[in-house]
Amino acid sequence: MLTVQVDTPGGHYPIHIGAGRLALLAHSVPADATSVVVVTNTTVGGLYGDAVCTTLGATGKPVLRVELPDGEQYKTWDSLNLIFDAMLAHALDRHAVLVALGGGVVGDVCGFAAACYMRGIRFIQVPTTLLAQVDSSVGGKTAINHPRGKNMIGAFYQPQAVEIDPQVLSTLPAREISAGLAEVIKHGMIADADFFVWCEQHVAALRALDEDAVLHAVRRSCEIKSWVVSQDERESGLRTTLNFGHTFGHAIESGLGYGQWLHGEAVGCGMVMAAELSVRVLGLDRSVADRIRDLVMAIGCPVQAPDLGVQRWLDLMRVDKKNQGRHIRYVLLPQLGRAQVQAVDDDTVRPLLAPARV
Amino acid sequence: MLTVQVDTPGGHYPIHIGAGRLALLAHSVPADATSVVVVTNTTVGGLYGDAVCTTLGATGKPVLRVELPDGEQYKTWDSLNLIFDAMLAHALDRHAVLVALGGGVVGDVCGFAAACYMRGIRFIQVPTTLLAQVDSSVGGKTAINHPRGKNMIGAFYQPQAVEIDPQVLSTLPAREISAGLAEVIKHGMIADADFFVWCEQHVAALRALDEDAVLHAVRRSCEIKSWVVSQDERESGLRTTLNFGHTFGHAIESGLGYGQWLHGEAVGCGMVMAAELSVRVLGLDRSVADRIRDLVMAIGCPVQAPDLGVQRWLDLMRVDKKNQGRHIRYVLLPQLGRAQVQAVDDDTVRPLLAPARV
Repeated sequence: MLTVQVDTPGGHYPIHIGAGRLALLAHSVPADATSVVVVTNTTVGGLYGDAVCTTLGATGKPVLRVELPDGEQYKTWDSLNLIFDAMLAHALDRHAVLVALGGGVVGDVCGFAAACYMRGIRFIQVPTTLLAQVDSSVGGKTAINHPRGKNMIGAFYQPQAVEIDPQVLSTLPAREISAGLAEVIKHGMIADADFFVWCEQHVAALRALDEDAVLHAVRRSCEIKSWVVSQDERESGLRTTLNFGHTFGHAIESGLGYGQWLHGEAVGCGMVMAAELSVRVLGLDRSVADRIRDLVMAIGCPVQAPDLGVQRWLDLMRVDKKNQGRHIRYVLLPQLGRAQVQAVDDDTVRPLLAPARV
Repeated sequence: MLTVQVDTPGGHYPIHIGAGRLALLAHSVPADATSVVVVTNTTVGGLYGDAVCTTLGATGKPVLRVELPDGEQYKTWDSLNLIFDAMLAHALDRHAVLVALGGGVVGDVCGFAAACYMRGIRFIQVPTTLLAQVDSSVGGKTAINHPRGKNMIGAFYQPQAVEIDPQVLSTLPAREISAGLAEVIKHGMIADADFFVWCEQHVAALRALDEDAVLHAVRRSCEIKSWVVSQDERESGLRTTLNFGHTFGHAIESGLGYGQWLHGEAVGCGMVMAAELSVRVLGLDRSVADRIRDLVMAIGCPVQAPDLGVQRWLDLMRVDKKNQGRHIRYVLLPQLGRAQVQAVDDDTVRPLLAPARV
């Protein structure tokens, strides 16, 4: 088992990475917990829910199970309230511990429920998708969506621990592996050129879920993310660079309707667009932008921006949380392995948003 | 102007207390704020909304006004969403600043909105009821209610500043003055016997809103509360003592339906009950319990517990956030000016809950 430590003002906790972690979850439950609530979705619950609840029952504590409908479109107040309703119906106190068993949606909703239930209780992240293992389960961002924008309502709230079992990826559809790899290669682009090169060299092994390759990719992603988050928990500076590709990506998700493209797919395409913008605004080497496009394509994500209409693209990007005042702010690359935040005027961006670019 | 400083891990901020503070609000808005959102209710908005928005407009920043319906029964997700909808419709960024202009409900809902909007933005408390000035605006507790319990969904989230203008109390109904005084005298009971004596001596001046008396009561309450909160922001110990009278009080509010009794009235009666329980469990001097009953009556709050049915009383108190496991925990007084938390078995409590006690 590997351990990556996260140290933020909001909490210090370990990320445990290793095959078989799922069967050892009971060890992560604090001794003074009065009950355990497993929050999952209908898909993951069907695969791992019974085993996890049985394992956690070994603590001798009452185990409650809450299943949310599966999909980004259910990242809502209604799902959040399913958790609150169940916990309050069982009169669970503030020493209950939540376990988020699922992908990014389950982790974000369950984490936000933990942040709000009786003003904050403890929770453990057990990410079951590659995307959640390398990105969303680490760093304490929790949220639900609002009809006008993704992740608009939420909290920075750190878990007690993150338990990553790469074995669960075997039941994941290939499309979700591709989407998860988008966030993996992002960490190379913004913070570690050597890791980007390693990804270029191991893309086939990664897509085939080669055990060693996946372990390295998950660990290096967690290390980079935890390093960033430990320096800037509340995203006042450095952490914003983790949003590389996300300004465009969020617009795609919101513009097409949540659930049409997977988050990682939208980010993959968004990174190609952000690299192109980096060439125009910061003089990023054209060959780097081409390698980024090639790698996004190689992991199996789309590289062609959908036609949302130029003005709608801009309107959608203007509600991004990074923005301050009038200009839209983008994460751009001055070179491979380095990122910075920069406001760019709409006229410079428009050509990238026109349909039928190839 | 008086200043009381609050220092918690979650934030350091001043409480400014002085006649005319309402007209000086523009000074409290941070220079880098991109917009100001005044959250108020229909009652307070009608009295002070225009003046406050005009004052804040002097900052040169856009000012948005959101009016919530007035009453504890509107401390809900729907009210919270009115704020989110308005802010997102105007595409406000995370450098917007919220101003909570109203009583405890407005402060709690607006504070929770600030805690959640884009994972946390800044806000200023401008309490306009005595209860909010001496209690709820200080210390960073924010929340909404759930059908199964009061303040079940919320966050610990500190404001940038608390601005208290005692002049606004002149428009407050006498019943709300009485309710606010319940929290004032509570601070004496749990932490400062001298202040309790001062309250006994100045109860007429306080009810008549004598300027010097009110200023002293507000300041001393803020000092005691900020001292407690600075030592225990998240209520793991000392802060719980601020809940003296609240276990019974919350059951009254919830059992009769929110809005029947004012929060302060329920707490007033709850303190009489908790003092009686203190006599039985901790041997509190009978004369102290009698003085507490007399003072609660003198400020104009009820001292006779409503008939909810004994079992329903216990069921309602069992969902209290203080509880751990089976026993209900109460804040009790070993002597005047000192409080402690103690689990008490139901059999000891039942006699206090039977109807027709005098």
